[in-house]
Amino acid sequence: MDDALFTYEMAVRDYECDLQGIVNNSVYQNYFEHVRHEYLKSIGIDFKDYTDRGIHLVVVRAEIDYKQPLTSGDTFTVTLKLQRETKLRFVFYQEIIRHSDSKLAVKAKMVGVALNSNGRPHIPAEIEKIFSHPIA
Amino acid sequence: MDDALFTYEMAVRDYECDLQGIVNNSVYQNYFEHVRHEYLKSIGIDFKDYTDRGIHLVVVRAEIDYKQPLTSGDTFTVTLKLQRETKLRFVFYQEIIRHSDSKLAVKAKMVGVALNSNGRPHIPAEIEKIFSHPIA
Amino acid sequence: MDDALFTYEMAVRDYECDLQGIVNNSVYQNYFEHVRHEYLKSIGIDFKDYTDRGIHLVVVRAEIDYKQPLTSGDTFTVTLKLQRETKLRFVFYQEIIRHSDSKLAVKAKMVGVALNSNGRPHIPAEIEKIFSHPIA
Amino acid sequence: MDDALFTYEMAVRDYECDLQGIVNNSVYQNYFEHVRHEYLKSIGIDFKDYTDRGIHLVVVRAEIDYKQPLTSGDTFTVTLKLQRETKLRFVFYQEIIRHSDSKLAVKAKMVGVALNSNGRPHIPAEIEKIFSHPIA
Repeated sequence: MDDALFTYEMAVRDYECDLQGIVNNSVYQNYFEHVRHEYLKSIGIDFKDYTDRGIHLVVVRAEIDYKQPLTSGDTFTVTLKLQRETKLRFVFYQEIIRHSDSKLAVKAKMVGVALNSNGRPHIPAEIEKIFSHPIA
Repeated sequence: MDDALFTYEMAVRDYECDLQGIVNNSVYQNYFEHVRHEYLKSIGIDFKDYTDRGIHLVVVRAEIDYKQPLTSGDTFTVTLKLQRETKLRFVFYQEIIRHSDSKLAVKAKMVGVALNSNGRPHIPAEIEKIFSHPIA
Repeated sequence: MDDALFTYEMAVRDYECDLQGIVNNSVYQNYFEHVRHEYLKSIGIDFKDYTDRGIHLVVVRAEIDYKQPLTSGDTFTVTLKLQRETKLRFVFYQEIIRHSDSKLAVKAKMVGVALNSNGRPHIPAEIEKIFSHPIA
Repeated sequence: MDDALFTYEMAVRDYECDLQGIVNNSVYQNYFEHVRHEYLKSIGIDFKDYTDRGIHLVVVRAEIDYKQPLTSGDTFTVTLKLQRETKLRFVFYQEIIRHSDSKLAVKAKMVGVALNSNGRPHIPAEIEKIFSHPIA
């Protein structure tokens, strides 16, 4: 994870666990989304503000590998890397590292696009700027 | 969808929509999971009962394509097909068809395994039986 | 429940259960909200449409008694009664009846108001109309 | 809040907001639950461990007043006070203070009991101990 663009510390909340006693699969998407939004905020992009201005950042494809479950009491680090896939699609690579054993718990590739209020692709200047410099 | 193994009708609930006014990405995993469990129930497999007996049906990989958003008021059909990928891995192919325009809203490939209480792969007899007959 | 204004049938979804193996407390609020919105829809009031028009129906107080837990596999009926508490506050009385034993599982008193986009109380004509006739 | 027994800092996550653009009512129950569990952990009581041992800490009544909404970007403090209501019932008084204006956003009274695996009230020694000393 040394080369991650952004890292974020989190902890499992008990209500996120399901009847198997582990974090429900859907919740990892919440974690990943939250960390993407925190990353965006860190570079000056506010998700809600974008939404209010009619710029919709949406995920069009998710690939998620569940390697190890998280459970009550677990703390973990979420990492993020970003790549431009095409002119209009950008990809977040995200990993969840469980603190108890430093194991990779979940990894994801999330493909996003930006749409204007007509549903047409539209990459805002702030996002163009991210890609104007090489990213580790 | 004519060849789906199982279909299930659902409706968006308002609390499932996020600040973009559309169903949050994570919620589709809830829909897909619910329909898998309903399918399993329809063939005599109860998810909670399995869990209580130490048989854990878990998703190890999800691939989800978000094509069209669902929003407040939408009703939709979730379909399911099932294939054995390897001796130990089975794959659910699932689609969400939006009723308003009959469009494919979301499609997913969910790879599952069954684990015993030691975390070892273990396909229960009921699940073996599913695959002993050709599936449409 | 013979005198309920509106009733709605639902079923527990497994992802709604937490690590105690029962439906998490917060989820009953989802159930109650969904049924309030379905009731409103049944009388011609669309929650999202109201929101888009700047009319915000909000809950200002909830009183919830958890009597019996719901768990995986449970089906249940949610009932709703409505009373005007003051000129500006209306009260939904809601109950969840578990089908397996016809027991009252959860009961709630939810106090709501309607606010305009300035956050000022504003009861829309459609809602005034509800109260213009005696309600059983 | 100077006399709170326990305080905990949190931040709204965007997926917790609904189509009104504010945190959904049900989510405050998640916040309150999480903070109760963190408090219990701070005094040596682990919720999941209790559950695994057949001791079920459950909420039997919730009274929640929604004063001000939280929205995307809000940070807030959750406070907790604890009182014994009867031999078998204990009450958590919880408040959410919004940082942006130090206003009380939500306040709650949550009544809890402890049940053994037969569903009978049973206050574990660790919880008895909390009440054996005066609480600020």
